[in-house]
Amino acid sequence: MALSSFSFPGHLLREVTTYPFKPTSRFYHQFLGADLQNQDQNRLTQSKKRLGGVCASLSEKGEYHSERPPTPLLDTIDYPIDIKNLSIKELKQLADELRSNVIFNVSATGGHLGSSLGVVELTVALHYVFDAPQDKILWDVGHQTYPHKTLTGRKDKMQTIRQTNGLSGFTKRSESKYDCFGAGHSSTSISAALGMAVARDLKGRKNHVVAVIGDGSMTAGQAYEAMNNAGYLDSDMIVILNDNKQVSLPTATLDGPAPPVGALSSALSRLQSNRPFRQLREAAKGVTQQMGGSIHGLAAKIDEYARGMISGSGSTLFEELGLYYIGPVDGHNIDDLVSILGEVKQTHTTGPVLIHVVTEKGRGYPYAEKAADKYHGVAKFDPATGKQSKAIALTKSYTTYFTEALIAEAEVDKDIVAIHAAMGGGTGLNQFLRHFPSRCFDVGIAEQHAVTFAAGLACEGLKPFCAIYSSFLQRAYDQVIHDVDLQKLPVRFAIDRAGLVGADGPTHSGSFDVTYMACLPNMVVMAPSDEAELFRMVATAAAIDDRPSCFRYPKGNGIGVQLPPENKGTPLEVGKGRILIEGERVALLGYGTAVQSCLAAASLVEQHGLRLTVADARFCKPLDHALIHNLAKSHELLITVEEGSIGGFGSHVAQFLALNGFLDGATKWRPLLLPDWYIEHGSPPDQMAEAGLTPSHIAATVFDTLGLTRKALEFMAQRRL
Amino acid sequence: MALSSFSFPGHLLREVTTYPFKPTSRFYHQFLGADLQNQDQNRLTQSKKRLGGVCASLSEKGEYHSERPPTPLLDTIDYPIDIKNLSIKELKQLADELRSNVIFNVSATGGHLGSSLGVVELTVALHYVFDAPQDKILWDVGHQTYPHKTLTGRKDKMQTIRQTNGLSGFTKRSESKYDCFGAGHSSTSISAALGMAVARDLKGRKNHVVAVIGDGSMTAGQAYEAMNNAGYLDSDMIVILNDNKQVSLPTATLDGPAPPVGALSSALSRLQSNRPFRQLREAAKGVTQQMGGSIHGLAAKIDEYARGMISGSGSTLFEELGLYYIGPVDGHNIDDLVSILGEVKQTHTTGPVLIHVVTEKGRGYPYAEKAADKYHGVAKFDPATGKQSKAIALTKSYTTYFTEALIAEAEVDKDIVAIHAAMGGGTGLNQFLRHFPSRCFDVGIAEQHAVTFAAGLACEGLKPFCAIYSSFLQRAYDQVIHDVDLQKLPVRFAIDRAGLVGADGPTHSGSFDVTYMACLPNMVVMAPSDEAELFRMVATAAAIDDRPSCFRYPKGNGIGVQLPPENKGTPLEVGKGRILIEGERVALLGYGTAVQSCLAAASLVEQHGLRLTVADARFCKPLDHALIHNLAKSHELLITVEEGSIGGFGSHVAQFLALNGFLDGATKWRPLLLPDWYIEHGSPPDQMAEAGLTPSHIAATVFDTLGLTRKALEFMAQRRL
Repeated sequence: MALSSFSFPGHLLREVTTYPFKPTSRFYHQFLGADLQNQDQNRLTQSKKRLGGVCASLSEKGEYHSERPPTPLLDTIDYPIDIKNLSIKELKQLADELRSNVIFNVSATGGHLGSSLGVVELTVALHYVFDAPQDKILWDVGHQTYPHKTLTGRKDKMQTIRQTNGLSGFTKRSESKYDCFGAGHSSTSISAALGMAVARDLKGRKNHVVAVIGDGSMTAGQAYEAMNNAGYLDSDMIVILNDNKQVSLPTATLDGPAPPVGALSSALSRLQSNRPFRQLREAAKGVTQQMGGSIHGLAAKIDEYARGMISGSGSTLFEELGLYYIGPVDGHNIDDLVSILGEVKQTHTTGPVLIHVVTEKGRGYPYAEKAADKYHGVAKFDPATGKQSKAIALTKSYTTYFTEALIAEAEVDKDIVAIHAAMGGGTGLNQFLRHFPSRCFDVGIAEQHAVTFAAGLACEGLKPFCAIYSSFLQRAYDQVIHDVDLQKLPVRFAIDRAGLVGADGPTHSGSFDVTYMACLPNMVVMAPSDEAELFRMVATAAAIDDRPSCFRYPKGNGIGVQLPPENKGTPLEVGKGRILIEGERVALLGYGTAVQSCLAAASLVEQHGLRLTVADARFCKPLDHALIHNLAKSHELLITVEEGSIGGFGSHVAQFLALNGFLDGATKWRPLLLPDWYIEHGSPPDQMAEAGLTPSHIAATVFDTLGLTRKALEFMAQRRL
Repeated sequence: MALSSFSFPGHLLREVTTYPFKPTSRFYHQFLGADLQNQDQNRLTQSKKRLGGVCASLSEKGEYHSERPPTPLLDTIDYPIDIKNLSIKELKQLADELRSNVIFNVSATGGHLGSSLGVVELTVALHYVFDAPQDKILWDVGHQTYPHKTLTGRKDKMQTIRQTNGLSGFTKRSESKYDCFGAGHSSTSISAALGMAVARDLKGRKNHVVAVIGDGSMTAGQAYEAMNNAGYLDSDMIVILNDNKQVSLPTATLDGPAPPVGALSSALSRLQSNRPFRQLREAAKGVTQQMGGSIHGLAAKIDEYARGMISGSGSTLFEELGLYYIGPVDGHNIDDLVSILGEVKQTHTTGPVLIHVVTEKGRGYPYAEKAADKYHGVAKFDPATGKQSKAIALTKSYTTYFTEALIAEAEVDKDIVAIHAAMGGGTGLNQFLRHFPSRCFDVGIAEQHAVTFAAGLACEGLKPFCAIYSSFLQRAYDQVIHDVDLQKLPVRFAIDRAGLVGADGPTHSGSFDVTYMACLPNMVVMAPSDEAELFRMVATAAAIDDRPSCFRYPKGNGIGVQLPPENKGTPLEVGKGRILIEGERVALLGYGTAVQSCLAAASLVEQHGLRLTVADARFCKPLDHALIHNLAKSHELLITVEEGSIGGFGSHVAQFLALNGFLDGATKWRPLLLPDWYIEHGSPPDQMAEAGLTPSHIAATVFDTLGLTRKALEFMAQRRL
């Protein structure tokens, strides 16, 4: 990326030193007590000295503290209207304060830090130049909007982010009129922005529409579809390509930053500037003349862009698709951003414009800048040291167990390969990549391609495992049906983040996968009830080579059961569940991790003198007909329990029961499943309570259905258990 | 498209005249009896004269006949191996015969004619140069493979295409080892080909992989995702862009050909050639030298390409994505195709190569060339006149009724807009476009974008109707969830081709939509039982402005009920079904067109002395609880009937019944739905019989569940009713 012609200004540090700041002894203690390298200590000592003993830098020199930083200017800002009269110098100050505010808030809550830090200046410039909410600013994915939320009426709630009843970690229409389009998944912003631009024109309105999208999001097909359509419809809209030179997802390996995948990234790095500047250049000239001598630096900068823009000889990918390309622009230079955005805003009837802005993920917070993943998503941390608090866990995450199981399978079967869609960290496959560098494929944020690519691999005798989050697999649904299931190709889907996901909320909830996978005729659909079962199901999927299969597992850690020797699971018999507790009258038939809730519920109920049967279905498809037959025959009540939507496991059981006459009076069936609404972000226990899937809920259902209403009510009173 | 430098050779006609051909009086009669314009008659008379009275042209002069054409060379070809020793001249002859053979066969069966005619020469050249099935040739969409099927062991079965137990109208792995990847939906071929290329390299094999993809398919995001990944992985593979200058789908209006949508098409038409020819040019030079003087024309042509390729200064979209671009190549010139393909085949370690081939849809059959849709998909027709046989129908298609209903709504509500994904003909929205040119959006083959674009429109107060086939909506599933349902935006989904679709087969079956839509919390899910109900549901969807809604309707024609005055339906009360027949003991609760089967079944059963209740659910979501409550309370058996997969309407009814205790002995429930396998292409009656959803099946289920097994068996014996 040829950014050398733009010097990153050193004013940030200087300006910050003009603010009063009261250090605390706690700050010094924590800060100096950190386990730093000598070199870092020297650097920090130097800057501390330069700042006159009071260490208050909020900028790239890396001095952050563990208490709320002073933000005198930001304190006066509640809404974008409050920044309209600020000078450029004050905007820079605001950006600095905003950055320190974001770091401090996220240190207390955890969240998406790196991407938010990368767009601090861009956020300030956008809200300065454009007039939200009349002008529409769409943030792709929406996880980079902590600065945006802070400037749009939510400053005081930022420490509630991602918590029960708190702010969402993404944009959300119901949260603020400044969040004009909700997000969570990537690459939707250009489509939605184009819709808003077309609607504006049809309605005869005059507002602007701006979509901010990362280079990672640009690898998804939907972004291309939208640009192709935008170029065709030629509506006025602005796409800001926030190019931070890495796919904006936790793709980092443990060894260091992952290079961006996909040929697009090299195309971006070749990009400089292209066709004649046309109207925009003329506008820039006008600015130069109007502004006169005092701001020659700014004018020169605009001319520099203008020259850059006419020097190119060819066209870019974006121009092939009909977007007017401007850039690259230094995304941390507020002068430049304000100028360019202002010019584009005033230049009407341009059709779609793409402004290529170059930013740095984690910008301004040295611990983030240095981190492999740029602190993409962090736990709570100490701002002074960047050290994330790590909950002490005796077990590892299901994601890690999946990876360990797959590595064990791949050790003995060289045909096993793994595919993920820009989620090497999130799916754990970066560990697989370490073991098998030639057998792991990161295809970019491209779930559709990932699945059909896997189908092609399977055609030629390889054994592909596609590891994709439940909610992201929705993006490849047609490919799962048309390319895999219909052709009965042995592609294995490792469906991570199944069920409720806590802080990420409904966009990331894995609510629908059992429903949308189990209706497919050829698919084997399974879910492990604990981590040992996950090992077995990975082995089972590896062994199933005549049809597609999938297994879902949750976010979070295993429960601590014994693991197979050397991580090598024993394959299960396909379509066979198991009985865990033999009881009477009532059978709980759990699917996936809900089995653990069933066991806990049985324990609760047993204290009241009734021993329940608990079974682990293991398979939603093929169903274990013999098991269900036996449960139905010997119990008066069968309760299915799953962390999924209607149409899934319970529905499959019900259909079997009905077709075989078991629901004609012999047995009662009650389904427990996710409710028919979206469960907001929050703590996992809060979510489970809202979903009605706690052991108490299960126990209450048992007693209620048996006619013991009082006991049921007792359990409902303690439903968080 | 700058193709003027390549003269389209006139040899086709000349060569064909060398074959014996026996005209029949039937041919002359039908041919001359056609209602032709004078100009056409003159032209045809002239060519007839020139051919010496025996009219046997199989080429662009437009003379085709109603009986099987002579194909002496093709008669000797069963498999690709049989063409390896042919001369270029013979290959041209083979192409001509193949074209006439395809026209004749499709005239008898109906099918995808235009796209198959466009790739006759390309098919011959591919099978001449490459060695299938070791080399993998993937045909995107697969509907253009009639020539390919004819050359790969299926010549004698071509007249069974799209019929029950006959050949598929698309590529299909289980049908032939030459169909290395099945298709039906667009834009999957590059992904699958890349998978095959990577697998080849991992397996240490040496075969070639070729994906043939149309310019229409290139508008889909998946193609972009795949190219981006191909450029990154740099595996050897060949992408042939079959550019026929229009989206290869029935997008034509009735007024003439529709221009291709999307900015990509203008980029393609700008494309000439690009970066230095590198290895390929060297190879071409080698050919020139080796071949010597006798084929100077060919050598000159290769040099011409080579020059073209080094003259460009910029890079193309494809090169930005890392593919080596070659083109454009005349796709009807076998000399050129064989040369270029041969060179590319022999040039190893090139990474992915894109050969831009320009073809003409409907090529060589004048009635197709002249037609607005290039005879994309045709009914049976008379080859001599091109006149398609039209079944006499008293009613119009559901698609047409949908359009008429939407036009009526849009007449009175200017906020109503319509979106489709390159299916203006198939969805009927071209008629809407005529009435409201500024309110109809064809976004290209881009369902993902279509849905989020609609969400953006809805955000700004418009009332978007997205008309997408059931099986194609699978491609936008995540957008339906994440951008529409989760945000509760009032986007209306008109789900066409719901249920079984006859000749197109399982790739196009609308089997899963009720399951995958009704599990979404905010979605209103409905299905009309007849065309009058469709009018009401369009009105209902227009009126529902606080949440998303959808309605599904089948392929095929209405049943002939009375339509509302001026096509303006009265909105239904949301979540209310209706009872059509009040009966006793057994209630049939139908959803969508299955209601008609329920009525027919009731009629059958009534002849045996039992009057059934028949209800039309209208809504799967929200369910009509009061209706189901009443049916369950007053009947011993409730049968749900739907043309959809498990997890859909029946599952929603069952869950309501179970949670309210109705399945605890009071009422029996039996679900009738699509079976758990893919139903192959065939006639609609055959498909319904295989699905077990005929009135006889319903009647048999009634009697069987009531314990009257003999009567049930009687009905099963006549199950095609």
